[in-house]
Amino acid sequence: MFAQLTQTYLPELDSTMRRVADRIPVEAPGFGVMIRYALGWVDENDQPFHRPTGKRIRPLLLLLCAEAAGGSWQAALPAAAAVELLHNFSLIHDDIQDNSPTRHKRPTVWKVWGQANAINAGDALFALAYCALEELSGALSPQTFFRIGRIFNATTLELTRGQHLDMRFERQPVVSVDEYISMISGKSAALIAACAEIGALVGCQDEQTAAQYAAFGLNLGIAFQIHDDLLGIWGDPAVTGKSAATDILSRKKSLPVLYGLSQSAELVSLYRRETFNDADVQEAVTILNRLKVFKYTQKQEEKYYRLAVDSLNRASPQGAAAQQLVQLVDSLFKRDY
Amino acid sequence: MFAQLTQTYLPELDSTMRRVADRIPVEAPGFGVMIRYALGWVDENDQPFHRPTGKRIRPLLLLLCAEAAGGSWQAALPAAAAVELLHNFSLIHDDIQDNSPTRHKRPTVWKVWGQANAINAGDALFALAYCALEELSGALSPQTFFRIGRIFNATTLELTRGQHLDMRFERQPVVSVDEYISMISGKSAALIAACAEIGALVGCQDEQTAAQYAAFGLNLGIAFQIHDDLLGIWGDPAVTGKSAATDILSRKKSLPVLYGLSQSAELVSLYRRETFNDADVQEAVTILNRLKVFKYTQKQEEKYYRLAVDSLNRASPQGAAAQQLVQLVDSLFKRDY
Repeated sequence: MFAQLTQTYLPELDSTMRRVADRIPVEAPGFGVMIRYALGWVDENDQPFHRPTGKRIRPLLLLLCAEAAGGSWQAALPAAAAVELLHNFSLIHDDIQDNSPTRHKRPTVWKVWGQANAINAGDALFALAYCALEELSGALSPQTFFRIGRIFNATTLELTRGQHLDMRFERQPVVSVDEYISMISGKSAALIAACAEIGALVGCQDEQTAAQYAAFGLNLGIAFQIHDDLLGIWGDPAVTGKSAATDILSRKKSLPVLYGLSQSAELVSLYRRETFNDADVQEAVTILNRLKVFKYTQKQEEKYYRLAVDSLNRASPQGAAAQQLVQLVDSLFKRDY
Repeated sequence: MFAQLTQTYLPELDSTMRRVADRIPVEAPGFGVMIRYALGWVDENDQPFHRPTGKRIRPLLLLLCAEAAGGSWQAALPAAAAVELLHNFSLIHDDIQDNSPTRHKRPTVWKVWGQANAINAGDALFALAYCALEELSGALSPQTFFRIGRIFNATTLELTRGQHLDMRFERQPVVSVDEYISMISGKSAALIAACAEIGALVGCQDEQTAAQYAAFGLNLGIAFQIHDDLLGIWGDPAVTGKSAATDILSRKKSLPVLYGLSQSAELVSLYRRETFNDADVQEAVTILNRLKVFKYTQKQEEKYYRLAVDSLNRASPQGAAAQQLVQLVDSLFKRDY
């Protein structure tokens, strides 16, 4: 059923995004290829690329919320394109900021075209996201359209706030759980919340109902990020496609790590080391296991997952889309340890 | 009279921008300082900074066009704040892309806080520009507000297109005059055009009149950039505050240079040298002078300046603001060689 959903939604989403991306003029051909590459449509020589890249989770969520709130997913396509374009803007800039060489098993935009071009390609995707939103204006009341614009603006600001905190935490010796939740609320969950809220607004044009969807999305986003944090340490490399305990090696201040650091002076002194070898990684995992940090983190994930499900129930989603929403949520948490 | 104008408009513009910038939450204090620093309000330690930085030409132009089109400049303040915030977004990213260490006689944002933070600060200013626009929605019909949003989206896309061409031209051996005009239309003139058009729309809500203002702004922006190109080679260092022939030393593909390159094989071979010393700079200027490139460039400037004035006349600007607009335009071209 879920596969059938993506087969229906994704081609339409894709053509909406392509129509918007075509606003990059042909006169600047070397520019458009960076955008098309980032969106997974072409290789670096602008030749069609068929290996799937992003999973388009955010626009799928938005379209399902539009249906579940009583509207049509087709009417929500411009908004779905907008959030996916915005998401890809943030990925391009993130990859520069993190110095990440690969994304979706391909070189990142800055790796192929350099940092200066990648900054500009990200900026163009930001602008294109707003261009996509324009197409919504015909189908909605001005009030609902303004409201969606406001949510979009607040979300982009939240993305930059979260990104700032994430970068700051790298150099900050102690990060509290509250600070961490605030950071991922901006960096990851705000956009998921916006997807759910905007989808619902397109579907029912009712702000109270949409607020329940927003709460669903925000808590879902937090739970999903915490789930990702668990996979970053205890994930099965065969499933995650990353090496084991990758977040320990990169010394990422994920929730398990910052909780462990707050409980163990031994871990703090280990994390002070200039370089980190495989034995250090193993030692860190051993400390975390002894402190039962996996259990602690799983409880946190469960807490936000429950809040998400409760908010969704309060929103009374309707029809087949309601079940598909639950399936989409479940699929996010399916990946095993 | 012009000084009186800035004394009236600028404090109100400033408080509108500050209100919008306050949407950066206090919780992320190290983030807000980058924004306030870029806008010229504080030094890098977040202490008040009183030396004037940007001249706010774009928002002044927008406010004057709103008045000249028959409206009130106060109603246009949110749009004026938006264009100034967008302009500063592009400056922060430009400075990273150009590796420029100083702006307005101060270290650039990336010089103070690093590239990763500067990318993010620019992104936040981009988001804040859209936040500023929100405040317009109450004062205008939904149609006019949508139209302004569309102009703003198209302008941000133009900025990125122009920036792409500018970066590409650095590595492109031959750049035609048409390509150059296309590049500066996006990188510099599109935002000036948007200022004039958006100001006029707020002032009179009439798209035909606003289109005349847009043509005025676009040609003004092109003429102004060409004027700047002249100053970059023949500007009096005492007036420009830059060293003489600075654009030759940096081998910028400005209009005089690319025209000279199209006329002189000698200049082409000079520009092929790995390094460039003072004697080379002098030789390049001598070649340009022999080819009467100053005169050629001045004629181009004059052409676009005339087109701008003609468009403005067709728009029939009204009242004191009409004269002040002419004064503002004159002040842009006052700087001597």
